[in-house]
Amino acid sequence: MAMTLAIARKIIAAGEAQAEKVGQPMNIAVVDAGGNLVAHVRMDGAWIGSVDIAINKAYTSRAFDISTKDLGEKSQPGGDFFGIQVADGGRVMTFAGGIPLKDSGGNVIGAVGVSGGAGKQDQKVAEAAAAAFKQGARKAA
Amino acid sequence: MAMTLAIARKIIAAGEAQAEKVGQPMNIAVVDAGGNLVAHVRMDGAWIGSVDIAINKAYTSRAFDISTKDLGEKSQPGGDFFGIQVADGGRVMTFAGGIPLKDSGGNVIGAVGVSGGAGKQDQKVAEAAAAAFKQGARKAA
Amino acid sequence: MAMTLAIARKIIAAGEAQAEKVGQPMNIAVVDAGGNLVAHVRMDGAWIGSVDIAINKAYTSRAFDISTKDLGEKSQPGGDFFGIQVADGGRVMTFAGGIPLKDSGGNVIGAVGVSGGAGKQDQKVAEAAAAAFKQGARKAA
Amino acid sequence: MAMTLAIARKIIAAGEAQAEKVGQPMNIAVVDAGGNLVAHVRMDGAWIGSVDIAINKAYTSRAFDISTKDLGEKSQPGGDFFGIQVADGGRVMTFAGGIPLKDSGGNVIGAVGVSGGAGKQDQKVAEAAAAAFKQGARKAA
Repeated sequence: MAMTLAIARKIIAAGEAQAEKVGQPMNIAVVDAGGNLVAHVRMDGAWIGSVDIAINKAYTSRAFDISTKDLGEKSQPGGDFFGIQVADGGRVMTFAGGIPLKDSGGNVIGAVGVSGGAGKQDQKVAEAAAAAFKQGARKAA
Repeated sequence: MAMTLAIARKIIAAGEAQAEKVGQPMNIAVVDAGGNLVAHVRMDGAWIGSVDIAINKAYTSRAFDISTKDLGEKSQPGGDFFGIQVADGGRVMTFAGGIPLKDSGGNVIGAVGVSGGAGKQDQKVAEAAAAAFKQGARKAA
Repeated sequence: MAMTLAIARKIIAAGEAQAEKVGQPMNIAVVDAGGNLVAHVRMDGAWIGSVDIAINKAYTSRAFDISTKDLGEKSQPGGDFFGIQVADGGRVMTFAGGIPLKDSGGNVIGAVGVSGGAGKQDQKVAEAAAAAFKQGARKAA
Repeated sequence: MAMTLAIARKIIAAGEAQAEKVGQPMNIAVVDAGGNLVAHVRMDGAWIGSVDIAINKAYTSRAFDISTKDLGEKSQPGGDFFGIQVADGGRVMTFAGGIPLKDSGGNVIGAVGVSGGAGKQDQKVAEAAAAAFKQGARKAA
C-alpha cells in the first residue's frame, strides 16, 4: 500500500476538524514512505514559522519510524539521541506532533506532522489525523 | 483582502483539473502575501523533486511580484537579473510555472507555483489556477 | 518491486567494472524510489568532490525520472529548466552520469549516479551500471 | 597506510554481520583520513533518516579523532564541548556509533559511523566494524 493524495487529504481533514475543536489553527503535513511531502495546509491564522516544522515533523516520523514525541524523550540531554536535532540538514524535529502511519501489515507508508500550538495541542491534532488514517483512509486504500 | 486556505484550495483544485487535462501530474503550491506557504499538493505520480520547486516558484512570484516565466527571461546570461538564481538561499526559481495573484485593487496577495512537467505544461496549469482565483475565488473572498 | 541493498551492490559492481575499463576511478551511488541513498562507493583515487555529486546525480534522476544528461540539455540558458540547478537545496545535478532505474512494469524504483571523470566517462559507467540492473539484477528481484 | 575501498568494505561487512546478530538493520559508513566518504550502505529496512547520521558520525570521529560516544559525554550541557552540535554545518554527531580507525602506528586513517538503532546497538555494531579493521583489514593493508 502506498500513500496517495486522496488519503493524505482525509488525514489532513481529520486533523483540521480536531484543530478546530482544540481552538488552535495548525499547519498539517503528510509525507510518503520516502519522506517526501504529499500535501500541506496552513489553517488561517496558524504560525508561519510552523510550516517547515509541520513538514519536518512528518519527515522525522518517517525517517526514524517513531513519533516525534517519543524521539523527543530520547534526545534530551543525556539521552541516546541527544544531538540528533542537527542531523539531516536540520530537518529532525524532536517535539510532539509527528506520527508515523502504518498500513494493515505494519509497514510505515508515511507520516503526519502537525505544528501550531503547544506540544499537547499538536499531539492531539496529530493523533486525530493518524486515527482517521487507521480507521478509514487505510481501509479504503 | 488576504489569502485564505479556502481560496488556496480553490486555486489548487483548478490547477489539478487542468493538470489532468494536460495529462501530467503536478505539484501545486500557494503562498500568501508574506511569501509563506498556505497549501501544497503533490498529485499521484508527480515528481518528488518538484515539491520544493512548486513551493519556491510560488515564493519567487510573490517575492518579486512577477511570473517566474518573465523573471526567467530577465535572468538569462546577459540579462538584468542573471545570477538571481542563487539569491534568497536558493529559493528563486527562474522558469515557467509561478504566477502572482492580485486582488481586485491590483495588490499582490499571494502566488501560485506549479512544477511537474515541461515549461509550457507547468505554465498552462499555473494559468488555469490563477484564472480560477481571478474569476471566482477572488470575488468570493 | 523495491530497491534493495543486494540489487544496489550489483549495480555498483557493474559500474566499477566499467570504470576500470574506462581507466578512471569513480564515485557510484544508488538511491531508492524515495530518492534516499541505498549505497555509495568511492573507488580508490576518485575525486572527493564527487561524493556528493554522484549521490545527487542519483537523487536527481529519481526526483525527475530523467537522466541528468537529458535534464542538462533542458536546463541550458534559454531552456525549459534553466535555473533548476539551485532547486532542492542544491541537490539537482544537470550533467551526465545519473540514470533512473525502472522495473519491468516501467515504474522508476531508484536511480544510479556516477561522478569522477569527464561527462562521457561518467555516462558510460552509469549506462553499464543501469544495464546490469536491467539485464540481471532486475530479473532476480 | 591509507584507507581503501577494499578495507572499507571489510569494515562494513563486519558491521553488517553484527547488525544481523543485534537484529536491527543499520546504515554503515566509512570515511578516510580527510573525513571524506569512502563507502556507505543502508541495510534493507534501516531508517532513511540515518543515512546522513551514519556518514556524519564517521566524519565526526575522524574530524576530532574521538568516538562520538565520548564526544557525546563531553558535549552535554555544562560540558567542554556543549554547543559543538551546530559546528561544521550540522555535521557533528554527538551520540554513540562513530569510532576512529587507527593504523598500527596509532595514526587515525579514517572512521566508521553506524546509525539505525538505540545508542547501544549502534555502538555495538560500530565496535564490531572497528574490531574487524584492527584484527584483519588493517594487517592486510
